[in-house]
Parts: sequence; C-alpha cells; structure tokens
Amino acid sequence: MGGPEIDRLISLFAKLPGLGPRSGRRAVLKLLQHPETRMLPLAQALAAAARAVRHCTQCGNLDSTDPCAICADPQRDRTQICVVESVGDLWALERAGVHHGLYHVLGGTLSALGGTGPDDLNIAPLLARVAAAEATEIILALSATVDGAATSHFLTDRLAVSGIRITRVAQGVPIGGALDVLDEGTLATALRARS
Amino acid sequence: MGGPEIDRLISLFAKLPGLGPRSGRRAVLKLLQHPETRMLPLAQALAAAARAVRHCTQCGNLDSTDPCAICADPQRDRTQICVVESVGDLWALERAGVHHGLYHVLGGTLSALGGTGPDDLNIAPLLARVAAAEATEIILALSATVDGAATSHFLTDRLAVSGIRITRVAQGVPIGGALDVLDEGTLATALRARS
Repeated sequence: MGGPEIDRLISLFAKLPGLGPRSGRRAVLKLLQHPETRMLPLAQALAAAARAVRHCTQCGNLDSTDPCAICADPQRDRTQICVVESVGDLWALERAGVHHGLYHVLGGTLSALGGTGPDDLNIAPLLARVAAAEATEIILALSATVDGAATSHFLTDRLAVSGIRITRVAQGVPIGGALDVLDEGTLATALRARS
Repeated sequence: MGGPEIDRLISLFAKLPGLGPRSGRRAVLKLLQHPETRMLPLAQALAAAARAVRHCTQCGNLDSTDPCAICADPQRDRTQICVVESVGDLWALERAGVHHGLYHVLGGTLSALGGTGPDDLNIAPLLARVAAAEATEIILALSATVDGAATSHFLTDRLAVSGIRITRVAQGVPIGGALDVLDEGTLATALRARS
C-alpha cells in the first residue's frame, strides 16, 4: 500500500494479540500521522523495554530490576508466596491489590497434551525458595482448568514434605476461565476465601 | 506493575485506536516474552517507518518515496483523479482494486462545527493539479455525511470552471447489507437512484 516499511509495520501489528489486519492498519495509520510525537516515542519505549526488562531470578516476574520491585520491596509479607501461571496473572492480582506477599511465576501449567512436564516450568526454583526462605504459606492461584488443577495437585504433593501450609484460591474462578481476564472483585473474593 | 519502562509502554499501546488498557497490557506482555524476535523488530520497524514515510507532495498519500508508488506508476491512468478524505480511504479503495487512476487526499472534510475551512484541507494543490495535468475526470469519493456532501458541493463548484468531468461514487445499500438496519437517508437515496 505505502511501501515496504508500512507493509512490514502493519504485519507486525496485525500479529499482536487482540489485533488483526484491520486494527493493525488503523493503529499504523494513526502512528504515521504523528511520526514525531507518537511513532518515535513508541519505537524508543519498545527498544528501552526490550533492553531493560528481564525475568526476576527469584520469582519470574518481568521488571527492569532483578530482583523485581515486588521481591525487593521490604513492605511485602515474605511469609506468603502466591504461585501463578503467568506474569499476566501476577499483574491481575496486583491490580486487585489483595495479595501483599510475594509471587512465584510458573510460566504455564503441566500439560500432558501440550507435552509440558515439571522440568519445563519454574518449579524447582519454587521448591528451593520454600526450603530456603521464611515462607509459611504457599497460595496456589492457578486457572480452574484441568491442567491448572493437575498442576495444583502436583505442587501440593511436592510441597507436602516441607510441611508448609498450602492453600488454593477459592472456586469462584469460573471453570475454564483464565485469571487475567477476571474483574478485581472476583479475584479479591477468590483470594480471601482461599482454603 | 513492572517498572516505569513497562508502564510507559502499556500507556502508549493503550492509546492506539481500537486498543485500551486491557488489550494494551496483553500486547505488551506478548512482546516482552519475545524481546529479541518480536519487540526489537517492532521497535526498528517503527523507527524506520517514522524516518522514511512522508506525505506524497502530489497526492497526499503516505509512502517512503515521493512521489508515492501510485503517482510514480506509469501503468496508472493519469486521466482520472479520485478525491478521498484520508489515506485510510485511499488504502481501502486500493484493496478493492477498482480504481486504476490517481488519487488526491484532502486530509478531512469541510466542517462548520469543527472549524475546518478550505484552507485547512489539501484543496489548492488539487485545483493546481487539475489545471496543470492531463486529468479528464475527478471522482469524488467522500463520506456520505453532511460534511462530506458539503465538501463535494464545494469542490464541484470550484472545479466547474475548469470544465473537467466531475463524478461521485454512488450511494445506496452496501453489498451484503440488510435493508432493515439501514438509516432512512440511505434507503431514500438508494430508492431514488434505482436503475
């Protein structure tokens, strides 16, 4: 349409989650109309984030510092570690503002069909954290899916030997639902009613 | 959530048309998971396009060459100039592949309420093109709105002195469109222009 630069940009935008060719074109057109005030700042913000952001070696969160701001925060309750599947789930819980402890990001769930085993997830570092740190409770906040439940069972089994208290967020998370699309109220209720 | 770099990136994405805070977060998370293969290429494509892309001084299209690829194409029919409001409209007509002539992008419509007068639009260059070039037909492809109609009238009036043939795209029922969801104005126009 407008040369290889524009075509390439549209195809990159169209691949983002939630966008397609049509919304990709709209976004690119809007940016092209403001090259100095919107397009270059976005390019610079992307490059800066790609350089600066990494996974926290303690919990797996994404941040420009390592350990991440949550792990480094002296105000957070170090006795509680909330186990989530993804950084998106961690962000959703932080927006709800109900968990004041630490996190541990697994990077997914066990999946027999998807071929994801314990070694593919961030599980060994979790066991090491539980053994080494002052945590007294592990809160499992995994999706209410078959794979999420299997992962919760697996972790409960592995953590049982440590004698640590293991809780799960209450059912109230809709069956088949992913955490990061839930409203804050549901998340707050589910976390408070953990068992 | 994950430091100032991530917050800034999410806020820039959330401002794009069709996206909001939620879809902005999803897009940024996806990019952060692939910093080398998706995030840096997008940053580079944005910077390259911001540097290279400009408005064609002949027609107002956006392209990395000036004149744009359409104006420079010897295969295009130089006797027809299709007048559109925006580059997005030009792209839509190009995707339809039905216009084989040149274009002229106005950059909007006249608007009494919005305070857009003839001098705010790319109109003087259009009159100059008509006077200088080999065009024999001006096709007005403006929105079927009050402002679009007013702009069409204004241009028809201004171009009449040149004696050039002036046509407008037909108004009516869109292909695949149901009659009962159309507004009365469209229905009345479609019925009057029956053939």
